[in-house]
Amino acid sequence: MKGTLRSVKALVFDVFGTVVDWRGSVIAEGKALSRKKRLSVDWGAFADLWRAGYVPAMDRVRRGELPWTTIDVLNRMILVELLAKLRIGTLSEAEKDHFNRVWHRLRPWPDAVKGLARMKKKVLVATLSNGNMALLTNMAKHAGLPWDCVLSGELFRHYKPDREVYLGAARLLGLRPGELMMVAAHKSDLDAAAAAGLRTAFVRRPLEFGDPALKDVKPEERFDINAADFLDLAKKIGA
Amino acid sequence: MKGTLRSVKALVFDVFGTVVDWRGSVIAEGKALSRKKRLSVDWGAFADLWRAGYVPAMDRVRRGELPWTTIDVLNRMILVELLAKLRIGTLSEAEKDHFNRVWHRLRPWPDAVKGLARMKKKVLVATLSNGNMALLTNMAKHAGLPWDCVLSGELFRHYKPDREVYLGAARLLGLRPGELMMVAAHKSDLDAAAAAGLRTAFVRRPLEFGDPALKDVKPEERFDINAADFLDLAKKIGA
Repeated sequence: MKGTLRSVKALVFDVFGTVVDWRGSVIAEGKALSRKKRLSVDWGAFADLWRAGYVPAMDRVRRGELPWTTIDVLNRMILVELLAKLRIGTLSEAEKDHFNRVWHRLRPWPDAVKGLARMKKKVLVATLSNGNMALLTNMAKHAGLPWDCVLSGELFRHYKPDREVYLGAARLLGLRPGELMMVAAHKSDLDAAAAAGLRTAFVRRPLEFGDPALKDVKPEERFDINAADFLDLAKKIGA
Repeated sequence: MKGTLRSVKALVFDVFGTVVDWRGSVIAEGKALSRKKRLSVDWGAFADLWRAGYVPAMDRVRRGELPWTTIDVLNRMILVELLAKLRIGTLSEAEKDHFNRVWHRLRPWPDAVKGLARMKKKVLVATLSNGNMALLTNMAKHAGLPWDCVLSGELFRHYKPDREVYLGAARLLGLRPGELMMVAAHKSDLDAAAAAGLRTAFVRRPLEFGDPALKDVKPEERFDINAADFLDLAKKIGA
């Protein structure tokens, strides 16, 4: 770790795409649903559309068109719209509820649990995600993610990349912003974290969108660390 | 577990006195400080006075005499008053800061880590304490407490036994109040939890105040569970 990074006391992690493979997980559960309900759906395209609905839905909350809303509720709104659009009309309300909770059951990237366990010995590790507390807590339990604590934009009633989320995490952890390092596979998240005074670590997740051509994984000098995965990140922070 | 308790999905734990031995821990660090600084202090009495300052300090916040204040800051205010009262004038500001953080380093009761690990396999386990998030997270890391997530009155800007804390925990966990069980060694905490709709488990901690004669450990029929310790509690919830 660079000399200037010795002051880092906590790593805070983006979750969707950085820690867990949302696309692969949605496809796997979708395929199981297809078998059970005899549906013919392109679940890769379905996962992409579900995910694509997420930023516009948060923007509706930001503009005040919706009151504060958890990601669980936004995800279900998008799911219902998608099912209607794709004319999938055979799911009961309970089946929709269950499928919506696939976001509580997302599978970690193969290096995630091992890398986190290693980093946890050296620094505090916490989520810093737009996923709500219940979603993140259930996911951690399901996937064995060894967080020291679970932090969410929900606690500040803001979504990333709003500044309040990064500063709120520092406040709750009793640390200065420069003592936190944001870890993400998304450059916009890291740029917003840096603007709030946090350190940054970029992790390459070329398969987030299935096709590596769709994902920007180029290292950037402006980030404090560029890492291939969580094991490489652990090594680079000296854990 | 009683049939009616099958719906319990999460155990939320009081921490000071229930999970950790605050008195023994403060005494141990105080004695070390005595040796280092050549102080002559009755650390048992000191610990009791420190703890006794805590409820009146929270009440000053509740009455609006102080703005929202974390337990870390309240503890340091009480510490400074105590040091003045006992004419202990030789601690630097850094030494006061360090000693105040003894509350981040409190030692678990002997059955706590093992009992929590066992319960965690069956239900979600979380803190629900007036300790602030940084304090509880650092304590968990220091003591190896395997929480699924850390919840604090700080997240709701209320202290227990305010109703907002119990209902806020249910909301963040995405559960109904009746799906939560409050675990505490203090009957007032459990009564407030029950009034908010939570289930209750009383745990006997006869040594919380040193002398067992000072602690009410009588089981009460009004609680859903009365347990000798966390291993007994694990057994009683079927974990």
